Amino acid sequence: MEDHVRIFDTTLRDGEQAPGCTMTLEEKLEVARQLARLGVDIIEAGFPAASPGDWAAVHEIAKTVGTPDGPIIAALARANKDDIDKAWSAIQPAAKKRIHTFISSSDIHIEHQLRSTREEVLERARLMVRYARSLCDDVEFSPMDATRSDPEYVYRMLAAVVAEGATTLNIPDTVGYATPEEYAELIAGIYRHVPGADKVIISTHCHDDLGMAVANSLAGVRAGARQIECTINGIGERAGNASLEEVVMALKTRRSFFGVDTRINTRELARSSRLLSTIIGMPVPPNKAIVGANAFAHESGIHQDGVLKHRMTYEIMDATTIGLDGNAIVLGKHSGRNALRTKLAAMGYEFDSEEEFNQVFQRFKELCDKKKVVDDRDLEVLATGGSLHTPELYRLEHVQVTCGTGVTPVATVRITDPDGNTQTTAAHGTGPVDAIYKAIDKIVGRPNDLIEFSIKAVTEGIDAVAEVSVRIREPGDAVEEREYRVGRHRGPQIYSGYSANTDTIVAAAESYMAALNKMIAARQERLSAENVAYAAGYDRNRPTYAVDLFGKNATE
Amino acid sequence: MEDHVRIFDTTLRDGEQAPGCTMTLEEKLEVARQLARLGVDIIEAGFPAASPGDWAAVHEIAKTVGTPDGPIIAALARANKDDIDKAWSAIQPAAKKRIHTFISSSDIHIEHQLRSTREEVLERARLMVRYARSLCDDVEFSPMDATRSDPEYVYRMLAAVVAEGATTLNIPDTVGYATPEEYAELIAGIYRHVPGADKVIISTHCHDDLGMAVANSLAGVRAGARQIECTINGIGERAGNASLEEVVMALKTRRSFFGVDTRINTRELARSSRLLSTIIGMPVPPNKAIVGANAFAHESGIHQDGVLKHRMTYEIMDATTIGLDGNAIVLGKHSGRNALRTKLAAMGYEFDSEEEFNQVFQRFKELCDKKKVVDDRDLEVLATGGSLHTPELYRLEHVQVTCGTGVTPVATVRITDPDGNTQTTAAHGTGPVDAIYKAIDKIVGRPNDLIEFSIKAVTEGIDAVAEVSVRIREPGDAVEEREYRVGRHRGPQIYSGYSANTDTIVAAAESYMAALNKMIAARQERLSAENVAYAAGYDRNRPTYAVDLFGKNATE
Repeated sequence: MEDHVRIFDTTLRDGEQAPGCTMTLEEKLEVARQLARLGVDIIEAGFPAASPGDWAAVHEIAKTVGTPDGPIIAALARANKDDIDKAWSAIQPAAKKRIHTFISSSDIHIEHQLRSTREEVLERARLMVRYARSLCDDVEFSPMDATRSDPEYVYRMLAAVVAEGATTLNIPDTVGYATPEEYAELIAGIYRHVPGADKVIISTHCHDDLGMAVANSLAGVRAGARQIECTINGIGERAGNASLEEVVMALKTRRSFFGVDTRINTRELARSSRLLSTIIGMPVPPNKAIVGANAFAHESGIHQDGVLKHRMTYEIMDATTIGLDGNAIVLGKHSGRNALRTKLAAMGYEFDSEEEFNQVFQRFKELCDKKKVVDDRDLEVLATGGSLHTPELYRLEHVQVTCGTGVTPVATVRITDPDGNTQTTAAHGTGPVDAIYKAIDKIVGRPNDLIEFSIKAVTEGIDAVAEVSVRIREPGDAVEEREYRVGRHRGPQIYSGYSANTDTIVAAAESYMAALNKMIAARQERLSAENVAYAAGYDRNRPTYAVDLFGKNATE
Repeated sequence: MEDHVRIFDTTLRDGEQAPGCTMTLEEKLEVARQLARLGVDIIEAGFPAASPGDWAAVHEIAKTVGTPDGPIIAALARANKDDIDKAWSAIQPAAKKRIHTFISSSDIHIEHQLRSTREEVLERARLMVRYARSLCDDVEFSPMDATRSDPEYVYRMLAAVVAEGATTLNIPDTVGYATPEEYAELIAGIYRHVPGADKVIISTHCHDDLGMAVANSLAGVRAGARQIECTINGIGERAGNASLEEVVMALKTRRSFFGVDTRINTRELARSSRLLSTIIGMPVPPNKAIVGANAFAHESGIHQDGVLKHRMTYEIMDATTIGLDGNAIVLGKHSGRNALRTKLAAMGYEFDSEEEFNQVFQRFKELCDKKKVVDDRDLEVLATGGSLHTPELYRLEHVQVTCGTGVTPVATVRITDPDGNTQTTAAHGTGPVDAIYKAIDKIVGRPNDLIEFSIKAVTEGIDAVAEVSVRIREPGDAVEEREYRVGRHRGPQIYSGYSANTDTIVAAAESYMAALNKMIAARQERLSAENVAYAAGYDRNRPTYAVDLFGKNATE
């Protein structure tokens, strides 16, 4: 067994499944590129059988990030031939590929969800690992809900798939139920009871429902696991997955206790966290371990005193290790294009086109007019600004608002549509944002539900740049709603818009326009993704998201 | 040993020490009342020696919440007579009192912070527990930084204080360094090596720097601990303390594994979390275990399908257990005062005066004018709205704003000062909020630094109520700054303002006024708290926050 812990990042699969964490293809690519910079060993890029759009995203990530010296690109598949075929075709462009297939091993799942028996399910696992192995040398298998399963049955199932050539055995605590003691015992038992377990990699996959995802993952490592499945900022279903930055920094800080390393470049942790947070519009709480704003801050007099006397009295980690170097003031009003380009390159930002860079430069100049000092954090906001990747179908030309106490809030907007026609209209509302959104709706005319709206000043001081995030939901049609309820469809899609501006009202208008443009573009993208997927042999005749994990015709 | 785990809440002490979590006396009282409803066994109300203001807050909580059938009220004290005297006088009004004294046991702290020796420190611990015990029957002792200490030395120190009558031994993982395995071993060792350990309560106190605070606390319980120190939402120094809701729900959900109960009324968990979040203006992240918005949400088709077929396939807890009953629509435009009063009483809100209720009713009516449905969450926002407890020294009479793209944002405000004089002024800024704040500053004239500004829509839909939180810092004078740097002073005070309104701009103005009024009132409160404390014998001649934990004259 190699003595390093592999980091299997599932931000783009399990993470992206969480409410409000849905990402567009462009956003997924941006996250995948950052994961490669961070040095994760495996990127689980998605679940290709979920929809042609998911297939296309995995395919694109495999093509872009799956270079020979890049990470392994994995795709998820239920234990049926169709899912495995779709996973395999989606990861084709990657230099290093992995198929990750799973089936439930707990009686509660076998009985109520699969409506099957232990023997049938075990046989299915065996046959499907054999099939996956006939396509791909690198096959991971997960007995879903392992921690609520009969361990003896789990071990039998694992023995069967190891015999068929599975190379990684992943042990999901699907509902976040285990304690470190129990989880370590389950992992240790694999080595005792599964023939050949010492020849494969054992992996952890823990959820945080009871607040123990990180401790469970590390207990797994103590018991011999050499892969951890985790996500940036711990996003994921319900309370989320084990947080990548926490497991990595715990292994590093307590190296002498755990005795194993990861291959993560920890100096990219802070940036990875901020990038994801910006893209999905989910702020990192100040008391989040490692990447929260307070993680390295000391407030009380006693702690202050101690840190001043000797840093190690109250600090076990150094902020620079995760890439926090303080907010060096670097650029201002008189900085030119080259200075900005050089600085951004040093910070790790590349631009696909000169036009993209020009957008950033223009926003930089606008910011310099309003703000005395432009620091690294401001630059990050500019460089990762969501609108960069949002197709500008409708363009906001002008917005103006009057509001206050005892005044009916009124907004005027001027918008150019995709055909180049410009319209101006006004509307009133319960507040200035409501008024703006009503005016925009009058022109764009695409019904949606606003489900989240937030503004945050990201830098100190009254001339701070405000970041606005909005999240809208496209009302599904009746068919989609029904499909969602029976589990055939991913559900009503949610689109987020993001904007940063010193004027909160302008940022509110821009972020809503960004979300609307995304929503409109997504329909087009879905169609084009379907065409790419179909052209690559994606089977259009199968339901895209079969309600049963264990469909009768699944092996045909 | 009694077979229940005591919940020792330190939200008001360790939690309040975290950057941005400072609370006013009124806010602390509101949290303490909710903690009593929640059924915590012990409230650590503060650190009386830190300042006369801290003393007064502990004293007031002891008086109000420390009823015979209420929680034990604890106060923290360093291991010196002056601190212990101040703690003891502050908790006097409580029916059940506890003195909690501590001293570091790690060599790194003893050498670099205390500049002392192991033997001196042990003797100090022994003498001060003896002294505390001469005052109070209930004495808790903590060897600070226990997890980085020589266990043998910790056990010797604990044996000495048990012999002097300490009734609770608390084991702090001060820097969040331990793993569950190590922490359990340290606790188990107490039973083996400390004579009389089976006659006292062993307690856990874990920090989350490596993401393991909850797992460490529970590992402690497995090893015999019967008290957990924790905070609502896991606030606290750096990455915070173990989160109360997570440890409580883990013990409840995994009752068969842990075999012990708490006496917490779990149906108050969700409300406790929201109340604290509102008061300190720190949102709970959606992927937070137990109380996050997604904790009980299922997004992916497979999980949806499973939950529909059988709830237990993907859920291990029931949302109603923590007090989430869905947003029943209950009140609207035509509801009267009695309906509102009855509903709020059912939700657990009491009002100190008719005037306070009238303010809530007026805000309810205003909200009904703007919003079609008023649900439980809206009512909570109204009932806990920070401004209820903010003294209205300066009153905002009117605000009006014009802004947009290509427009210089301009704000007009009319404000009445404490003497009843009304002034109107206008200002421009980089954005509408900046313009408003500049106009307000022109009239109020109290310099401050804006360190945080955030807006969040709390209910779905475009006519949502927006919650605005601002946080300002009063620039300290040169003396205060120096005192802070050497650890004698609690540091520059931070004040938060909060407002909820359908008009984000009005809410932004109101929340800033609230923060300013708090800042101005705090100076008056500090003076009056000092007078209360001095009248009760608080020693005005000692430095309020001695730089050394182990001052030469501390036992005199």
